[in-house]
Order: sequence, then C-alpha cells, then structure tokens
Amino acid sequence: MSVSSALIMRRARRDDVNTIVHLLADDALGSTRERLEDPLPSAYFEAFDAIEKNPDVSFMVAEDAAGAVAGCLQLCILQGLSSQGASRAIIESVRVASHCRSRGIGEQMVQWAIAESRARGCRLVELLTHQSRIDAQRFYARLGFAPTHVGMTMRF
Amino acid sequence: MSVSSALIMRRARRDDVNTIVHLLADDALGSTRERLEDPLPSAYFEAFDAIEKNPDVSFMVAEDAAGAVAGCLQLCILQGLSSQGASRAIIESVRVASHCRSRGIGEQMVQWAIAESRARGCRLVELLTHQSRIDAQRFYARLGFAPTHVGMTMRF
Repeated sequence: MSVSSALIMRRARRDDVNTIVHLLADDALGSTRERLEDPLPSAYFEAFDAIEKNPDVSFMVAEDAAGAVAGCLQLCILQGLSSQGASRAIIESVRVASHCRSRGIGEQMVQWAIAESRARGCRLVELLTHQSRIDAQRFYARLGFAPTHVGMTMRF
Repeated sequence: MSVSSALIMRRARRDDVNTIVHLLADDALGSTRERLEDPLPSAYFEAFDAIEKNPDVSFMVAEDAAGAVAGCLQLCILQGLSSQGASRAIIESVRVASHCRSRGIGEQMVQWAIAESRARGCRLVELLTHQSRIDAQRFYARLGFAPTHVGMTMRF
C-alpha cells in the first residue's frame, strides 16, 4: 500500500500552525516570505484564529498513517455575481513536505479540494501559480486545470 | 471637468443587480456566461444577498454625476497563513459600461480597490485576467500590477 493511500485530510488545528509555517517556508519562494522564529510571530496565530472563524475558508492538512502532517492547502469559497451568481473556489498555499514529495500526496490534496468545491456548489475552481513554477503548472494541467488566465499581483 | 472626476464608489444595492448583470454581460466573455432574462434568474439575487452579509466581500458600483451606474467591481479580502499571516485582496468582475469607456473610470475603480485593500491591511492584491484580454493586462500593468502568475482554472 502506498503511503499516500492512507492520507487523511482534516482541518488544521492551532497546534499545527508551527508545522504549517515550516511547510510554507520549505519552498524556493516561500522561504523568502515567512519568518521562522521560535516562538513564531503572533501574526500567524491571529491569522489562524480568523481563518477558523470564517466559514468560507478551510485550512487543511494531509495527515499520514503515522499522524504526521505531510502537506497542507487552503481552500476559499468566494461568492460572486458573475456567471449567474456562481460561487468559485480558490486553492492556495499548496505544500507537500519535502521528504514526502513524489508520492501523490499533492494530487490527493488537490482532488479533495476539487471535490469539496463541487460539494459546496462552486462552478469554478481557480488558483494562481507563480510563472516560475513550471512543474506545478504541469501538475495542475494533469489534474484538469487549464492555464486560461494571467495572474497579476501587486505587493505593498 | 471630466466625467470620471465626479465618480462616486458606493456599495451595490439590491436594486442595482439588474444593471450590474447587464454590465457583466456587456463583454465578449461575459456575454456567454450570463442569463439576461426578465425577470433575472433568482440566483443573482440570492448571490447578492449572500455577498451583502459577508464582511469580506464588497460589490461596488461607480456612480456618475447623474446618478447612473458606469461600472462595477467586486473586492474580496482573503485571510491566509502564508506571507506571515497576510490578508490578500482579490479584484474581480471589473466592468465599465460600454458607452462610458476610455474616460478613466476603470482606473478610478481599481485605484479605489487598491486603496481599500491597503486600508484593510492587505499586503497583496491579485486578480485573474483572461489570457485573451491583452488590453486589460496592459491596463493593470500601467496601474502597477505585474504578470507574476499563471491563473489556472477548472469549470464544472
């Protein structure tokens, strides 16, 4: 049995925040954006508490058979008026622990997000992936996403 | 005085929904996605009511000096854990009435959204624009957005 087949997707808990932030930072782009102090900056916990209260945002972790967190993603449901009042889902912060990659964990997580988006009545799932993440773009294309849009950003 | 200088950005009201849906449909891509029936499908009003209750979503209209709606956009604030628990803003459904284009109305609307995103503590503003909307990409680049990401989508 592959490791990935025993994965469980569950909502992140406050005591996962440290692990999640390390996952977010374990990445070429993420390493420049996070602050891995001990203890972590309180902004992470404040953000977690806000997410937990928000019914439209789910921060999920993939837990392996041993109970360890192997990956994470955030799923947001956005209400809108366009496309006949359709809700859309946005997938963000997809990360797989570096020692757990190439086992299909990312695919299971994203398939969970797609299924959840359907179950919640979304008619569209979208995500932004950095232009430099060619492997990620190939991965999402394999799962059925099309590179239909340009993702434009402004950082303050 | 240019028309655009007298624009007011205000929250959309339920009695704007008909006008807004016509704005959304008055567009090469939007025309295939909306249903301009009379009365409009109730899904639009249900979506509007949900948006109105959601403190993280603002559907705005630009009203000209005569009180007519000249454009619209939707601004969503998304909480997240990445980038040190930063909130990000997503701009969507940007439309200017076809008889009001080329007067700087779109720019004023988007500048409002950028300012509002800053005021609400966001560290990032992002948007997806269809690959085919070359003029829109040029417009957003002029306002300071960079085409850093690929926007990948899956429609159900």
